[in-house]
Amino acid sequence: MKKYYLMAPGPTPVPSNVLLAMAQPMIHHRTPEYEALFIEVRAGLKRLFQTSQDVIPFTSSGTGAMEAAVVNTLSAGDTVLVLRAGKFGERWEEICRTHGVTVVPLEAPFGQTVPADTVERALRLHPEAKAVLMQHSESSTGVLHDVKAIAAATRASGAILIVDAVSSLGIADLRMDEWGVDLVVSGSQKGLMLPPGLSFCALSDKAWGHVKASRLPKYYFDIATERKFVARNECRFTPAVSIFVGLREVLKMLEAEGLPAVFRRHERLARATRSGCEALGLELFAKTQPSPALTAVVAPRGLDSEAVLSTYSTSHNITIAGGQGEMKGKVFRLGHMGYVADFDVITALAALEQVLHELGQPVDFGAGVRAAQKVFAER
Amino acid sequence: MKKYYLMAPGPTPVPSNVLLAMAQPMIHHRTPEYEALFIEVRAGLKRLFQTSQDVIPFTSSGTGAMEAAVVNTLSAGDTVLVLRAGKFGERWEEICRTHGVTVVPLEAPFGQTVPADTVERALRLHPEAKAVLMQHSESSTGVLHDVKAIAAATRASGAILIVDAVSSLGIADLRMDEWGVDLVVSGSQKGLMLPPGLSFCALSDKAWGHVKASRLPKYYFDIATERKFVARNECRFTPAVSIFVGLREVLKMLEAEGLPAVFRRHERLARATRSGCEALGLELFAKTQPSPALTAVVAPRGLDSEAVLSTYSTSHNITIAGGQGEMKGKVFRLGHMGYVADFDVITALAALEQVLHELGQPVDFGAGVRAAQKVFAER
Repeated sequence: MKKYYLMAPGPTPVPSNVLLAMAQPMIHHRTPEYEALFIEVRAGLKRLFQTSQDVIPFTSSGTGAMEAAVVNTLSAGDTVLVLRAGKFGERWEEICRTHGVTVVPLEAPFGQTVPADTVERALRLHPEAKAVLMQHSESSTGVLHDVKAIAAATRASGAILIVDAVSSLGIADLRMDEWGVDLVVSGSQKGLMLPPGLSFCALSDKAWGHVKASRLPKYYFDIATERKFVARNECRFTPAVSIFVGLREVLKMLEAEGLPAVFRRHERLARATRSGCEALGLELFAKTQPSPALTAVVAPRGLDSEAVLSTYSTSHNITIAGGQGEMKGKVFRLGHMGYVADFDVITALAALEQVLHELGQPVDFGAGVRAAQKVFAER
Repeated sequence: MKKYYLMAPGPTPVPSNVLLAMAQPMIHHRTPEYEALFIEVRAGLKRLFQTSQDVIPFTSSGTGAMEAAVVNTLSAGDTVLVLRAGKFGERWEEICRTHGVTVVPLEAPFGQTVPADTVERALRLHPEAKAVLMQHSESSTGVLHDVKAIAAATRASGAILIVDAVSSLGIADLRMDEWGVDLVVSGSQKGLMLPPGLSFCALSDKAWGHVKASRLPKYYFDIATERKFVARNECRFTPAVSIFVGLREVLKMLEAEGLPAVFRRHERLARATRSGCEALGLELFAKTQPSPALTAVVAPRGLDSEAVLSTYSTSHNITIAGGQGEMKGKVFRLGHMGYVADFDVITALAALEQVLHELGQPVDFGAGVRAAQKVFAER
């Protein structure tokens, strides 16, 4: 018997109690029962997004909410700044170009972040910029952008700050209102420990102002119309009902743990993972602030990183992820977000030792696990 | 104890075996396991859509796939014909107008269908029309359009026929290839007996030709790009994995029953429902071909139809649906699609007798049930 472990950077494991809640008989989305569910979830989402604004849900994957952010706040011909530090930064760029929005890319070499002063300078050079688009956690490279500093750099400008928090919501601290973030986008299948299929947008008053001015056409992702339905505790179109049912359970779990503890847990798991990998002589891909959601690791010289993930899978029944785009073959990625705790990291590292050994690499067995244990033993 | 029954025209009840399949541990969407699932589902969807073309899935509700159909086959300034026989016909119109497409509405009074010769005449008057958009089953009024005849009327023109089959796929016969339907849109939460959250588009060669010419911007719903991923047995963006898992189970159930039997079952359930309602002295809302998916019933004179559904709910724990838009207060709707069989109809009718009685209407107890039983006893 080989137990199955999902250790990729999303979708993440769904707790059994949540799976069973979602396996309850289907309910209808225009009933008092659904309304009660929605009211509870609506309040919980505000706390999770650390905002007093309503969080607008869409039945889609995170990319749908990314496109919603663009088509609801911008118009063709607008100029925006895009922080491009990985594959998901490129996605912002693709979405903007698709809709005739001019992109000024602010690039960081993959594995690094774009510093706040780069954004500040670019905003001075491009006072016409309508928005700054970025990832909080960039899942393709495993780095974490300094949203607080970039929000401070953006606040005085006319531009809104749009943050993809798909792999940071409920993982890394993101104080939407306090830091002055204008639009936060997220999804259900990462920190929220749910199946993929539900996404979210939360907007500041400044962002709602941009919505009024936006001229790009939208129907399914029409956020101003959806907001009116949310105000009545429903969704405009038939929502992913079962994921909403799961969301209620997940919000309860996160509130019981407490958001600060949730963030500390992820930071600690990430630190233990990094420490374990380095103790095994591996190089981390992140050269600046690493993400608490996942760890991207450079494959040892001469070893294709695809061999690492296939050995994880075939020998140990563990799913991790490889590199995307130009990082394919060079990087493997270990997820530690959502329903993850200490001994999951121990398992991932113990398996990594086995995998490296099976691939003919020299391994000091136990070294990775030992380094992680030391992190866990800290007070 | 009052057992709960979901008898609305979607979302529909999900079979327990499907719920439990979906409650299995989450899997990742870039793995051999998911690929095997996708291959099975891909083949099953073709048989269900009665087409040799690939069916393109999107993580969204049915409205998302409706918008996908429009933005992928049309351009701003194009003219289309829209069959407007209810709320969902109006939705086609809204989506088209949102994207700068000129709509020529072909109206039927609510409760009636638009005949094929109306479409034929309109196509002669508007040879510039790029598409004809319609509902197969119009869930707001409970009628069924004659897709076969309208496809025949459309085939010779340059226009493609776009059919919303959200409440007809796996319910009413729809021979996409044989009848020459160009684009079929559907969703997971009606005949497919799944939770809402997955939608589908299937396109003919003629429709794929329109995709090449379409100039409307799209990213999340970019059907040509998505098609390339489907060809490799995956989805472009993180899909609603758990609904795909359920879909495999549902396709097995539908294939075991056999599509012709599935269609006969729905037709029989609908006939029994109509017969039962008429035996209770109620008027059916559909004046032309009724839909096998649901029955829309006119509330007795002087009775608000909202009272019928609230009594169904509060007295009997049964969810049915009311009228939408201008039909609110006048019509109630009984769903009989998906995971529904004879004794569900008996339950709905027995409850209706109780509900009418509770609302002070004269009721010949058993008359509705008796009429349905006679239909079921037919050979």
